[in-house]
Amino acid sequence: MSWKRSERLIDMTNYLLNHPRELISLTFFSERYKAAKSSISEDLTILKDIFDQQGIGKLVTIPGASGGVKYIVKINEEQVKPFVSELCQIIADPDRLLPGGYLYMADIVGNPTIMDQVGRMFASKYADKDIDAVMTVATKGITLAYGTARYLNVPVVIVRKDAKITEGSTVSINYVSGSTKRIQTMLLAKKSLKDGSNVLIVDDFMKAGGTINGMISLLNEFNASYAGIAVLVESEEVEDRLIDQYTSLVKLSNVDVREKQISVHEGNYFTNS
Amino acid sequence: MSWKRSERLIDMTNYLLNHPRELISLTFFSERYKAAKSSISEDLTILKDIFDQQGIGKLVTIPGASGGVKYIVKINEEQVKPFVSELCQIIADPDRLLPGGYLYMADIVGNPTIMDQVGRMFASKYADKDIDAVMTVATKGITLAYGTARYLNVPVVIVRKDAKITEGSTVSINYVSGSTKRIQTMLLAKKSLKDGSNVLIVDDFMKAGGTINGMISLLNEFNASYAGIAVLVESEEVEDRLIDQYTSLVKLSNVDVREKQISVHEGNYFTNS
Repeated sequence: MSWKRSERLIDMTNYLLNHPRELISLTFFSERYKAAKSSISEDLTILKDIFDQQGIGKLVTIPGASGGVKYIVKINEEQVKPFVSELCQIIADPDRLLPGGYLYMADIVGNPTIMDQVGRMFASKYADKDIDAVMTVATKGITLAYGTARYLNVPVVIVRKDAKITEGSTVSINYVSGSTKRIQTMLLAKKSLKDGSNVLIVDDFMKAGGTINGMISLLNEFNASYAGIAVLVESEEVEDRLIDQYTSLVKLSNVDVREKQISVHEGNYFTNS
Repeated sequence: MSWKRSERLIDMTNYLLNHPRELISLTFFSERYKAAKSSISEDLTILKDIFDQQGIGKLVTIPGASGGVKYIVKINEEQVKPFVSELCQIIADPDRLLPGGYLYMADIVGNPTIMDQVGRMFASKYADKDIDAVMTVATKGITLAYGTARYLNVPVVIVRKDAKITEGSTVSINYVSGSTKRIQTMLLAKKSLKDGSNVLIVDDFMKAGGTINGMISLLNEFNASYAGIAVLVESEEVEDRLIDQYTSLVKLSNVDVREKQISVHEGNYFTNS
């Protein structure tokens, strides 16, 4: 069967969305649709314009015999601002406040629509970096790490605070919790990160940054580096933050557990470079 | 600006893929593209055929004033069989064997491409049921639960084996581990599941089924029921399985840790109803 343009465009959209950051040759599409490469090139021009205009992403074409097309997630910042405002409102509910200035977030990190959109935004922010893996610490950061890794087409690496038999041998480090100043342990299965990897660190919540600092120490043990740090929510109530370069989507301030008050604003996502 | 058909088809594909199981009115598309409803209907006919043919899913059209279109994930079983064979090969690596007949799976549950595809298959299997949430137990099942929940457009609910301050009040139950016969505890934040929900239980690995049995007991505490149980890997080496109705993608047998041997086959996914 030979495909019509309209049919090709539907299938190509689905295919590209499911293969982010993967180089797909024109030959592949040409054989898939039994169409001339010149027709495929014209299809890609139409796709490129709509992907760009609708904030779906960039289609990067690489010329030459070994060339092809790559779909890179790239959001349109103006288009996602209403989403972030809405998220701030959801988070501002004073019933979320828990002892110690923590927030109940299970419904937010359990919501695939929100996690997918935040993951898309994080992936877009770091789209131009070489990233080998997205790292987070169990449990609450996992859905966000997955949402991000899916768009970057890299594995999720999960650090734990307790050893499990199902991980094989592990590397562990001690770190100081930024808020409580207690010494804690975190560990990572040896097999789960390749030596020398460049990692994007993702978490749902950051106070002083002790946990994230712990992940950075762990990266050192694997001779790995980090390409960036991205958190869903940062809490501003911190005397000495351990981390200075990071991206946050939402910022909390004036957290008053006793009075059940909380101020929620946009984080630095739209303003940092 | 008014949209051409080719442009509409690209954007509609992206929009539908990002809004599974959501009723989208023809008016919405008609206004979005400044096009007549008759043109949108024609677009949907083209989309429907390609979605069906390529195993992307069903487009269900609901007629009438409050009608519209719904994208339901529905895979084509023949198309995913090579994926399951490949997965069996990946899992059959004897280096994955750990003491107690467990398997190292962190790389598999951390791989978004695999988790997305398995999630799509599970969502497709239970597409016709009314499902309010996907439940799993921390930590290793979370990415698979998310991958499934994303296609079902419902929240992920995460059961834990240890209490965290960031969850608020919790409901806990005791259960007997099927393999070790030890009594263990699992708990779920009160806020995280609505009373009377119908839940799909998902996990990465099932031996005797003690953990899944525990989740079922927990559901009783929330007056909730389960629509199904889906596991990535089941281990056949079980004398008395606690669970009888479930879907599995991969089945292990002849697990011999000392001899580093393992047999891996397709689970019951393609044969059970």
